[in-house]
Amino acid sequence: MTPPAAAGTLSEASYGDDSPIAAFASVPGGSALTLIRCSGRGSLELAAGVFSAGEKLLRAAGHTIVRGWIVAPGGGKVDEVLVSVFRAPKSYTGEDGLDISCHGGVAAGNGVMAALRSAGFRDALPGEFSFRAFMNGKLDLTRCESVMELVSAKTERGRRGAVSRLSGALENEINAIKLELVRVLAGAEIFLDYSEDEIGLDAAQDAGRLPGRRDAEETLARLRRLAETWRLERVYQEGVLAVIAGRPNAGKSSLFNLLLGEERSIVADVPGTTRDWIEAWISVEGVPVRLADTAGLRLSGDPVEAMGVERSRALLENAELVLYLIDGETGITEEDMAFIGGPGHGTPGRTAAKKRCVPVWNKADVVPAPASLQTAHGPPIAVSAKTGAGLAELTAAIADAIIRPAETANASRDRTPETAAVGTARQKNLAEAAVAALEEALALDAREEPLDLVAPRLREAVNLLGEITGEVSTADILEEMFGRFCVGK
Amino acid sequence: MTPPAAAGTLSEASYGDDSPIAAFASVPGGSALTLIRCSGRGSLELAAGVFSAGEKLLRAAGHTIVRGWIVAPGGGKVDEVLVSVFRAPKSYTGEDGLDISCHGGVAAGNGVMAALRSAGFRDALPGEFSFRAFMNGKLDLTRCESVMELVSAKTERGRRGAVSRLSGALENEINAIKLELVRVLAGAEIFLDYSEDEIGLDAAQDAGRLPGRRDAEETLARLRRLAETWRLERVYQEGVLAVIAGRPNAGKSSLFNLLLGEERSIVADVPGTTRDWIEAWISVEGVPVRLADTAGLRLSGDPVEAMGVERSRALLENAELVLYLIDGETGITEEDMAFIGGPGHGTPGRTAAKKRCVPVWNKADVVPAPASLQTAHGPPIAVSAKTGAGLAELTAAIADAIIRPAETANASRDRTPETAAVGTARQKNLAEAAVAALEEALALDAREEPLDLVAPRLREAVNLLGEITGEVSTADILEEMFGRFCVGK
Repeated sequence: MTPPAAAGTLSEASYGDDSPIAAFASVPGGSALTLIRCSGRGSLELAAGVFSAGEKLLRAAGHTIVRGWIVAPGGGKVDEVLVSVFRAPKSYTGEDGLDISCHGGVAAGNGVMAALRSAGFRDALPGEFSFRAFMNGKLDLTRCESVMELVSAKTERGRRGAVSRLSGALENEINAIKLELVRVLAGAEIFLDYSEDEIGLDAAQDAGRLPGRRDAEETLARLRRLAETWRLERVYQEGVLAVIAGRPNAGKSSLFNLLLGEERSIVADVPGTTRDWIEAWISVEGVPVRLADTAGLRLSGDPVEAMGVERSRALLENAELVLYLIDGETGITEEDMAFIGGPGHGTPGRTAAKKRCVPVWNKADVVPAPASLQTAHGPPIAVSAKTGAGLAELTAAIADAIIRPAETANASRDRTPETAAVGTARQKNLAEAAVAALEEALALDAREEPLDLVAPRLREAVNLLGEITGEVSTADILEEMFGRFCVGK
Repeated sequence: MTPPAAAGTLSEASYGDDSPIAAFASVPGGSALTLIRCSGRGSLELAAGVFSAGEKLLRAAGHTIVRGWIVAPGGGKVDEVLVSVFRAPKSYTGEDGLDISCHGGVAAGNGVMAALRSAGFRDALPGEFSFRAFMNGKLDLTRCESVMELVSAKTERGRRGAVSRLSGALENEINAIKLELVRVLAGAEIFLDYSEDEIGLDAAQDAGRLPGRRDAEETLARLRRLAETWRLERVYQEGVLAVIAGRPNAGKSSLFNLLLGEERSIVADVPGTTRDWIEAWISVEGVPVRLADTAGLRLSGDPVEAMGVERSRALLENAELVLYLIDGETGITEEDMAFIGGPGHGTPGRTAAKKRCVPVWNKADVVPAPASLQTAHGPPIAVSAKTGAGLAELTAAIADAIIRPAETANASRDRTPETAAVGTARQKNLAEAAVAALEEALALDAREEPLDLVAPRLREAVNLLGEITGEVSTADILEEMFGRFCVGK
């Protein structure tokens, strides 16, 4: 039942043209409605050819809605839909386009997509709508990226950071910093073009010979602050993997359920839970935490189970945080101490040593934790997974263990998410490269090197900042970047 | 971060009012966009209160689109959205309403829903939008139900049946049949009101005394044809469970992969595949088939595995079709024969006897199936799961085994899906009840019972048909029906 491929098939498709494209913009599933997005040259005319109210669609003004049926080329009704009409340049992409709201369900959405393909639309590449929006000057790169951040934001705190960038907070800050640097650069270039006498400026700066050196130093500090925001921002965006470990019967599953059940802001269940461990995303003070409860690390002769144990071990290796559970009833054992370290066990085990660990004393309702107990990670948090006692202290300890190492003087958890912050590794790498270029410029100047060696470093910093917003970019970089977007975006 | 509950909380909510409601209309997930639907009294005014371009929204004509930001009551930006404005009565529900297209992702959608709740919207009940559409005369019940059919349609054939009902094919057929019956009833009632002499009609009918008896008989035949369509329609809509069974190493997993891999119209993967068997939906001649490959029914001392075997057995018990795989290399065994029956094994095993079964001879590329081999279910289909030979024959045999028993003279698989057909068990039960009432009316008349005994049965048939389209209905029935819809519909 697959319709004949449209003129432009996916294999010949590439970013950077304006051919008509279509894609699911929402997940076609058991929901009430599915949204399909179309954009590109002639897209309204093509859509009109498979639409019962084609004439009305062609006459429709931008930002209006037309109701009708999508009809297959053979004439059969496919689905009753609402078509939102957008006319260039007032659209997401800046091109003519339409959003089709059809009924939910896999078959309805597929039917509409098949009709659109037969009309001449090709399937959009990942991120192609945003790519076009960027190329047509509708969004800078930081805003394009914030759209993808929004889609994958797991907590309210992550959403607020992304929305801040979508509003242009990062773009504005980058542009402000760049403007400062351009001014310094302009001053330096005047010096290069004319002799000092001609300009009549006092060449005897405090240190170095760069005019506007103090401005450059202030800008460097501002740029460093911005680049540092990534450490904390990344934690809020990507979250961390926390694994519950401990001896059998220490109460690992009960603690897992307690953290899940009490925590009202569960953000998403992980589909396809494996047979080796169970896991779920929870939100701890706005940080998405992927909490995993390993089945226990028993050795087994069963090859299938052995594979499971192997995967559980790999999970523990990858964890950024381990909640190590001590069975309060049986008390602390040699095995426990080997993992978490403590008096007489100066060095914790290989796994625990290299990652953050929160020791937890469970069953505190039956046997209270000894007041003197110490581990290499501080005294254990006393909880009762059964009664829920100690949960607030445990949550605070988890948040502290996750957030503290990511905080800097300029990016503490008290900073409002609305302030400009770096939102992707790409932005952070460029910001850090700009910092390095600017540092080098100032170092060269401090050594009284000639300005014609200093100026290129300044220009490099300006260009790197321009790359963050996309003012300076190459087709390769753009395709690489947008290719990581989801389809329909 | 949960906002304070709106005035109308869910606990006090009920169908049948026009209070402002909101719900996700598409699944909020990792997609580009999420659609949120709002409807009800004052919904545009309430939405304007949490929208950056509130004034523009209030002035917007129906069927136009306004762009802006959803803002939290505290003033923070939540998400940049497109709002489609609908003004009563030109909307899905017949009320004022809006569709909000926000960014994808759990956090963005939840943020918009939270802002709407704080503005005074309550969460919609399941099917509440469709309920209102029905109450406001926008859709009859068969069309409302077709919307849910569309959402859950798994194959193109299922979609076409649902679209036919959404277009009104069933509604029109029911109304046409009802009109015929109302004419017969009117004729009978004239007889009841006046004496035969007064009307001057010839009371000596061919059989019985009902004027228009022949019309009633023709209508009965037409109604029976319609009620019978359900048997086949149900198969196309709900699909069947087919389980691959057979001795270990017969090639069950290879056959599963062959049917999946060769079949281009896989409709959906089943999430949460269990450890006991793997399964997937495939489309066989338009019938959705939930194909399951049991892990094998070995007995095991491991309690976890034993539970798995138990669940595999239950799956086999529930299967509507069993693909029983014979290992061609080792040849047919006593165990095979006990399951599928054959010469010397007159009665197949308990499980196989009561359900349809397609015997399959695998590894036919190595050992061809003996030409003389017979089973209680006919000769086996020879295939090679390795080379793919025999796949077309197997698919045809599966389709035949599934569709043939559901076909009737009036509902063969050649019937076009656009013809009027019954689409839900509710409609089918009412249609059958109407058939029974009409049959009883004709039987009473044939026994020359007085017309005042016949007429109430005719009236009952008319009312039952009116219930199908919702012309006759009670609040309880409606709430029961719409309560099974998904939220946002």
